[in-house]
Amino acid sequence: MLLLTVDEHSPEPIYRQIIAQIRDKIAGRVLLPGEKLPSTRRLADQLAIHRSTAAAAYQELWALGFVDLSPGSCPRVRDRMQIATAADRGEKGLVDWQATASQPSDALWQSYRRLDPPGRESTPALINFASMNMDSRLFPLESFRACLDRAMKNHGDVLLGYGARAGFRPLREYIARRLQSHGISVTADEILITNGSQQGIDLVFRMIAAPGKTVAIEAPTYDYVLPLLRFYGLRPVEIPVRRDGMDLDALAAAIAADRPVLIYTMPTFQNPTGISTGQAHRERLLSLCEQHRIPILEDGFEEEMKYSGRIVLPVKSMDRHHLVIYCGTFSKVLFPGARVGWLAAEKECVERLAAIHRFSELAPSMILQAAIHEFCQSGHYDRHIGRMHRAYRKRMQTAVRALQRHIDPAWAEWTEPSGGFLIWLKLKPPPRPPADWKAHLAAHGVEATTGGSFFYGETPDTYLRLSISPLDEGEITEGVRRLAAALRQLHSPA
Amino acid sequence: MLLLTVDEHSPEPIYRQIIAQIRDKIAGRVLLPGEKLPSTRRLADQLAIHRSTAAAAYQELWALGFVDLSPGSCPRVRDRMQIATAADRGEKGLVDWQATASQPSDALWQSYRRLDPPGRESTPALINFASMNMDSRLFPLESFRACLDRAMKNHGDVLLGYGARAGFRPLREYIARRLQSHGISVTADEILITNGSQQGIDLVFRMIAAPGKTVAIEAPTYDYVLPLLRFYGLRPVEIPVRRDGMDLDALAAAIAADRPVLIYTMPTFQNPTGISTGQAHRERLLSLCEQHRIPILEDGFEEEMKYSGRIVLPVKSMDRHHLVIYCGTFSKVLFPGARVGWLAAEKECVERLAAIHRFSELAPSMILQAAIHEFCQSGHYDRHIGRMHRAYRKRMQTAVRALQRHIDPAWAEWTEPSGGFLIWLKLKPPPRPPADWKAHLAAHGVEATTGGSFFYGETPDTYLRLSISPLDEGEITEGVRRLAAALRQLHSPA
Repeated sequence: MLLLTVDEHSPEPIYRQIIAQIRDKIAGRVLLPGEKLPSTRRLADQLAIHRSTAAAAYQELWALGFVDLSPGSCPRVRDRMQIATAADRGEKGLVDWQATASQPSDALWQSYRRLDPPGRESTPALINFASMNMDSRLFPLESFRACLDRAMKNHGDVLLGYGARAGFRPLREYIARRLQSHGISVTADEILITNGSQQGIDLVFRMIAAPGKTVAIEAPTYDYVLPLLRFYGLRPVEIPVRRDGMDLDALAAAIAADRPVLIYTMPTFQNPTGISTGQAHRERLLSLCEQHRIPILEDGFEEEMKYSGRIVLPVKSMDRHHLVIYCGTFSKVLFPGARVGWLAAEKECVERLAAIHRFSELAPSMILQAAIHEFCQSGHYDRHIGRMHRAYRKRMQTAVRALQRHIDPAWAEWTEPSGGFLIWLKLKPPPRPPADWKAHLAAHGVEATTGGSFFYGETPDTYLRLSISPLDEGEITEGVRRLAAALRQLHSPA
Repeated sequence: MLLLTVDEHSPEPIYRQIIAQIRDKIAGRVLLPGEKLPSTRRLADQLAIHRSTAAAAYQELWALGFVDLSPGSCPRVRDRMQIATAADRGEKGLVDWQATASQPSDALWQSYRRLDPPGRESTPALINFASMNMDSRLFPLESFRACLDRAMKNHGDVLLGYGARAGFRPLREYIARRLQSHGISVTADEILITNGSQQGIDLVFRMIAAPGKTVAIEAPTYDYVLPLLRFYGLRPVEIPVRRDGMDLDALAAAIAADRPVLIYTMPTFQNPTGISTGQAHRERLLSLCEQHRIPILEDGFEEEMKYSGRIVLPVKSMDRHHLVIYCGTFSKVLFPGARVGWLAAEKECVERLAAIHRFSELAPSMILQAAIHEFCQSGHYDRHIGRMHRAYRKRMQTAVRALQRHIDPAWAEWTEPSGGFLIWLKLKPPPRPPADWKAHLAAHGVEATTGGSFFYGETPDTYLRLSISPLDEGEITEGVRRLAAALRQLHSPA
């Protein structure tokens, strides 16, 4: 006889108590597949419960697959497939994920593990020139929190619904107005909100990706773009970056030889070199692309960080023939955690990109877009940019002075950037190069990014990219001192 | 002589006033390219300003590309490329975006315009069974707003930084615990947070996409999946959905014939049919896939909406051999606006998907993830699910009763769903079919989705999908009445 008990005083409904006990007995093999269970009526009598309670228990056990029910006969224990448990987790599964993944996605995974290995979080004892994170001490936390709350209070029921196509309309309108201060004239219809500028780049690549197509990129360039190009089967053609920006003669030659379908460029505070091109360079680049009708993806990720006063307008400002897809972000002046960036391009291009966005994730959340809009509208954004300019003008001056003071020109050369967060050192080959630059720097208490990951091909030279974005003046000065010590050791006689 | 004026009392700095006036004169062709401007000293004398102010104005005009400066000679107006203005916007640009886009992305754009034409917003006068939006009257607005604010107060400085790989750790841990209530045993390492479940599907497709690969899908299936498969060059094999779910004999035959690399299925409240498969069906599906080592993408988008009491556990619950990639979301029980969904799969698979996610958009925003975590942790989520179950149990009963009462079996047949939001009507061919179903229904004051978009191939039959998610009981009853009137007209003698 089946031994079950019910507790009328338990908060657990009686039918659930029965289910749990029968499941336990099956799991413990006290009840075996095929075994008969009492009929609904007998179970009800035995436990002094209502028949409908017993029936409900059997119904759910049937739905869960633990018993077979057939009219006129007693329920029987079913030979149910086992529920997976933590014990199964150790076992290697049946699927070969490498074989299931495409070759390009397998390669992307390898890049991920190389560029961004798990546990790469920086050691607090090291001064970190490698991170492009922003300095959280400068986040406008309280004012943004208030804006977020106000946005929810005023538009919550709309914001919790599915997002609007192409993004929260008032924010698109604000961005269009804001871009005018950079000489760019677009309407809200020519703006697509993206999850940071990285997604903007991803969408453009996905729009054009087809086997054999070529994209011209700067060498060096943003390291997170290279694996993505490869992933989409796009062939990069590297155009060297000189002191004044991308080598336009080399670009002209590449256009003739490789017919790129897109040119990806960062004219302002290029990552990793920090170089900004001048007006004449921008005009020639645009003319060249107009002549060949090649679209430009202009990455203005640090456009707002022109704190040194010399303003050069984006290429997009002169884009009378709608070749330029301009990509911007709030991440590099406000904070990255809202993941709000945008693309500005000819309306048809924006709609094509919006289609990919739509099928990839329906619509981005409007909650944070509305909060950023509130933040911008109420003047916080302009004030915050002012604060950021003052802070980083001093920080960059501190960095440059420290480099001039501590780094011997025989060890490295660099160009003074006119804004942004990046300084690019070209190292002179030391008499005794370290086996592992990262380890050598860490031994001196400092981190920086070595140049290799910014080139698609090999580079014979050694570079270090210094990012000052997460560091204050004291950390910058001390960091450069440590860097100098690391370089001195490699250059001093043994 | 150059006529300029400066206003010392203006809030605009003097050098900016000079810049603006010279730019205006160039734009108005009062100053022509090549024309000489006064030297810094002469300009300073003329306006009675400091020489450094005049120099600063020329420096910025040079950076902006309006003047040429060379040592020892006067500044000259430069032949600058024009800034684009609103007037240029009307012109068609130089880039042929259709030719620039890949053929698959062009097709995706066509699908977007067909499925989701601009201005498709529903007419308020119509009762809308077409929308899968949630009923904003049920959103837990105030409690979520409080949770969002608390999350910002407690973790703001972290949340505004770049997000953690694979998502906000405490939320991943919560989801892992929560999945146990559906019989699924996974750890936080086996969870990847995505921007809604749509992005989960997109990432899986991107991971496997390679020319010639085949994916088995249900026919009919979720309409937003079909264009995405095509976009990634994946060939769908349609497996008919019967009354008890996907036809597993047909699936076995398709596995033998087409060797699919993935099976995409919605075992619970399938979209669009509303059908849930039983335990035996799930076991046979999993066994079949184990035998052939084919991964399953199990879309549990409405898993939490099992309000009728009969609980069947997800296929993933039995997945001892790690074949199942389970895809879930908060959108269909909480609200869609946070765009928080997840994938649960074998750790290696999750890491491969995380790599694609990382290069596509760095990391999803942690702000909303932390707010949802706060909402779940403090018990709001469980209470909200209870409320949603009570509301939709009644709404679905109302819908089914109204259909039974008003829709003649000679016009249509349907299956009563055991949960979720969807009812799928198979229409009997009316003597006088309308030229345009959408227009015919609209003429009777009701909207519903016709079946064609849920099939990859052609379907000879006519279906209507009714979604009750945005409607209350009164709207549902009235909507079914209007639908009945629309069908009656087609079936009644002229």
